[in-house]
Amino acid sequence: MSLIQDDSYVLVYRDRRRRWLVRPKDTPKLHTHLGILDVSALVGKEFGVVASTTMGDELCILRPTIEDMTMKFARKTQVIYPKDLGLMAVKLGVHAGSKVVETGTGSGATTALMAYLVRPGGMVWTYDINPEFQAVAKKNIERLGLSDSVSFKSADSRLGFDEGGFDAGILDVGDPWEVVPSMKAGLKPSAPMAAVTPTTNQAERLVAKMKDEGFVAIETVEILLRHLEARVGMTRPSNIMVGHTAYLTFGRTTKS
Amino acid sequence: MSLIQDDSYVLVYRDRRRRWLVRPKDTPKLHTHLGILDVSALVGKEFGVVASTTMGDELCILRPTIEDMTMKFARKTQVIYPKDLGLMAVKLGVHAGSKVVETGTGSGATTALMAYLVRPGGMVWTYDINPEFQAVAKKNIERLGLSDSVSFKSADSRLGFDEGGFDAGILDVGDPWEVVPSMKAGLKPSAPMAAVTPTTNQAERLVAKMKDEGFVAIETVEILLRHLEARVGMTRPSNIMVGHTAYLTFGRTTKS
Amino acid sequence: MSLIQDDSYVLVYRDRRRRWLVRPKDTPKLHTHLGILDVSALVGKEFGVVASTTMGDELCILRPTIEDMTMKFARKTQVIYPKDLGLMAVKLGVHAGSKVVETGTGSGATTALMAYLVRPGGMVWTYDINPEFQAVAKKNIERLGLSDSVSFKSADSRLGFDEGGFDAGILDVGDPWEVVPSMKAGLKPSAPMAAVTPTTNQAERLVAKMKDEGFVAIETVEILLRHLEARVGMTRPSNIMVGHTAYLTFGRTTKS
Amino acid sequence: MSLIQDDSYVLVYRDRRRRWLVRPKDTPKLHTHLGILDVSALVGKEFGVVASTTMGDELCILRPTIEDMTMKFARKTQVIYPKDLGLMAVKLGVHAGSKVVETGTGSGATTALMAYLVRPGGMVWTYDINPEFQAVAKKNIERLGLSDSVSFKSADSRLGFDEGGFDAGILDVGDPWEVVPSMKAGLKPSAPMAAVTPTTNQAERLVAKMKDEGFVAIETVEILLRHLEARVGMTRPSNIMVGHTAYLTFGRTTKS
Repeated sequence: MSLIQDDSYVLVYRDRRRRWLVRPKDTPKLHTHLGILDVSALVGKEFGVVASTTMGDELCILRPTIEDMTMKFARKTQVIYPKDLGLMAVKLGVHAGSKVVETGTGSGATTALMAYLVRPGGMVWTYDINPEFQAVAKKNIERLGLSDSVSFKSADSRLGFDEGGFDAGILDVGDPWEVVPSMKAGLKPSAPMAAVTPTTNQAERLVAKMKDEGFVAIETVEILLRHLEARVGMTRPSNIMVGHTAYLTFGRTTKS
Repeated sequence: MSLIQDDSYVLVYRDRRRRWLVRPKDTPKLHTHLGILDVSALVGKEFGVVASTTMGDELCILRPTIEDMTMKFARKTQVIYPKDLGLMAVKLGVHAGSKVVETGTGSGATTALMAYLVRPGGMVWTYDINPEFQAVAKKNIERLGLSDSVSFKSADSRLGFDEGGFDAGILDVGDPWEVVPSMKAGLKPSAPMAAVTPTTNQAERLVAKMKDEGFVAIETVEILLRHLEARVGMTRPSNIMVGHTAYLTFGRTTKS
Repeated sequence: MSLIQDDSYVLVYRDRRRRWLVRPKDTPKLHTHLGILDVSALVGKEFGVVASTTMGDELCILRPTIEDMTMKFARKTQVIYPKDLGLMAVKLGVHAGSKVVETGTGSGATTALMAYLVRPGGMVWTYDINPEFQAVAKKNIERLGLSDSVSFKSADSRLGFDEGGFDAGILDVGDPWEVVPSMKAGLKPSAPMAAVTPTTNQAERLVAKMKDEGFVAIETVEILLRHLEARVGMTRPSNIMVGHTAYLTFGRTTKS
Repeated sequence: MSLIQDDSYVLVYRDRRRRWLVRPKDTPKLHTHLGILDVSALVGKEFGVVASTTMGDELCILRPTIEDMTMKFARKTQVIYPKDLGLMAVKLGVHAGSKVVETGTGSGATTALMAYLVRPGGMVWTYDINPEFQAVAKKNIERLGLSDSVSFKSADSRLGFDEGGFDAGILDVGDPWEVVPSMKAGLKPSAPMAAVTPTTNQAERLVAKMKDEGFVAIETVEILLRHLEARVGMTRPSNIMVGHTAYLTFGRTTKS
């Protein structure tokens, strides 16, 4: 059952920069400058095999992880990075059965990771006022086979959520402070929320609003990730590094 | 069903540094320098309420998250930080049903997060040659109610794992390169692994061994987390910061 | 001529945390928990010698550098760190003969480094509205023998500087934007300035004002310094680290 | 005397990425995609003026700082960054009159800054076994008018320096540990040295050798510099950042 199917996504991997996410049924032949790979011939084989291109170059055929899938999402809006998503998942305590509300949907990368974690038994309600973004996200979620765990809502979450009793909440909009009252009303008492904001001004305004609304355990952090080039006798940090993605603000509701 | 029980863990929260994790049955009265809190009186109330001490100080009564629980684990060995655990969870793609192998057990913090994520249907096999560490970890895992998802193995994982077909693997030992062949044999082809090493020398040696054993998509990273003190008109990064926890090395097996 | 005198400052060095800055004439005997050091007996010896305490502990007798001297300054106000001072010195191009204006004086650490660099032939004019701060700074500058290169001005620099034609300017006050017009007027056309601000809000407001006043090449940076514990086979970054000191904003005047 | 001469270097500045370092006598007309600038017409004008291109675009005419000059040096070898140079200058205490020894010369960027700081009365002896590098560096130093303060030595510094009694030393070679004994012999007792190494392995080996040779106050650091995009209401760290340049190791000699 672990064998590659015609509609399986496979990650064709050469190195960190040369990697392709394809399906045999969509891309029977993959043309690269390392030669052509016969993707259709992979059907029935195991993930993890090494395959040769027409030019004799060897490529690894990997089963895509949730990270591979979400990082390849259409970049119409800014994707949240794994370093940030991971901390959010841990601090929100999202796991099988969790009920999570998110606004906005964006490219669906956060939605996808959360949906991946809440199955079985959980659900992610994702709000966005922009139906175009949701169309892209919907397609992305479908590709991952996660549609059953996501409920798309095209609505203005500043006016409140249609549902309630959420275990965790995520804000990824330009004016998150406007949605804090909805979040307060929708979350279970004591439940955690996380917000993603690129600027210090947004974080500042958001934190003030969260305090006003009775949130506690409020903290804002940023995460810097740096690669280490670990080579025998020549180990050094990578000189390429992303300087900033976003500030993450966390807090928990109280029952007032 | 969400009400506080006599054997519920509750997080008594004042601020980032003043927080206590207690159970009514163990600590009916909590003595703090802010006064005494009647913990037993919380039974039957909802999480999220605010309670007063004998000195009139208000404390928030929160439901502990998986982060709260694991970060309070006995510090006999070094606990892995949420920033690192989160990235590991995302890159390993751990979710309900995953079969994860880990060595060593340590305080059980990583074990706990993984067990929390693999339920229902998954399992974490955790190996350690030191039975004393496992005794501490077992107690920690029990407190979290996660014992059904963890299989403790007191054995030398350099000699191989008793099980196989793992979806993901975690190495957190002083000589991780010695366990790489066991990991290679135990993981499903294409499955990801993660290793935690404090020094650059360990990362260097580990990466070399992983290459020898046919792992691909190898990368070593470090994560720096900094707090932002977001206050209206006076926002600044925190001047207190952890400079280093560990290097995280990731890779995936191939079928050779 | 390089021998220790009765009024020489000497740095008694054991390790990064145990170091003392003393003079034979003030502290003939230095009492430490490593024993008593006969400081007066060092007179006439060379810097760099190793001396023993009464308990037989060996201490290095070093000639204090400008860094040693400034970092020991009274901490009544926040001292600027060497990492920040160094970049400022390079970007301001301060060297022998430079005419530098600074406001405020603070503990005199920045003043001291600049005075150290502008000799011979240069001068540092340092403004502060708080005469108490200047009293402390004056004493610090005297200890370093740099008084001839510093002109202390107890005045409100928002109203302008008494002098002009400065080669470089430094702002280290709470409301630096208020002093930007004075800086514009006092600096030579094309001359660089640097400002030190702890918060993002200050940097934001300062940069806006500098743009208004025709400054160009404006940039704001922050510097993170981390120690590496370089030990054979066990090299790792230090886990103790300062998370934030200040944002540094640079710019140059234009002739409008 | 501050007016632009035919052989003055001028920095033509538009923004952080569009800047040119030219001399009227070499480049009477500067062709840019913003139009042509009549550089020869700047002769006799003051630095700091704004000049228009043939397309009406305004460019600032700045007097280049030592940073501007060194950062434009030919990139045949790796240039040390201002953030690193600044800390080295402060920790080495280099100022007018200092006698500094350096190996290797590289592009001459470090040499240039040190020469700039030691004038008048000081000297920088710069050793390199590669005469080709020194040819480039010599030209760079000449352009800066600093040749009188630099003594170029084409020799193997592992065999010792021809001079002695240095106030400070700088090592910027691939095998700095090989030069530590020469440094020990050449520096005044108690004098500081600094070494620049890209890898952790080099730092590790260097520190071990420095300890063997009796150096004290040894410390290795790395500096991360990040830009803050300070804009009213939209302030955020820059997402572009250099992840690593080099480790800096400092220490002081003792008299053994």
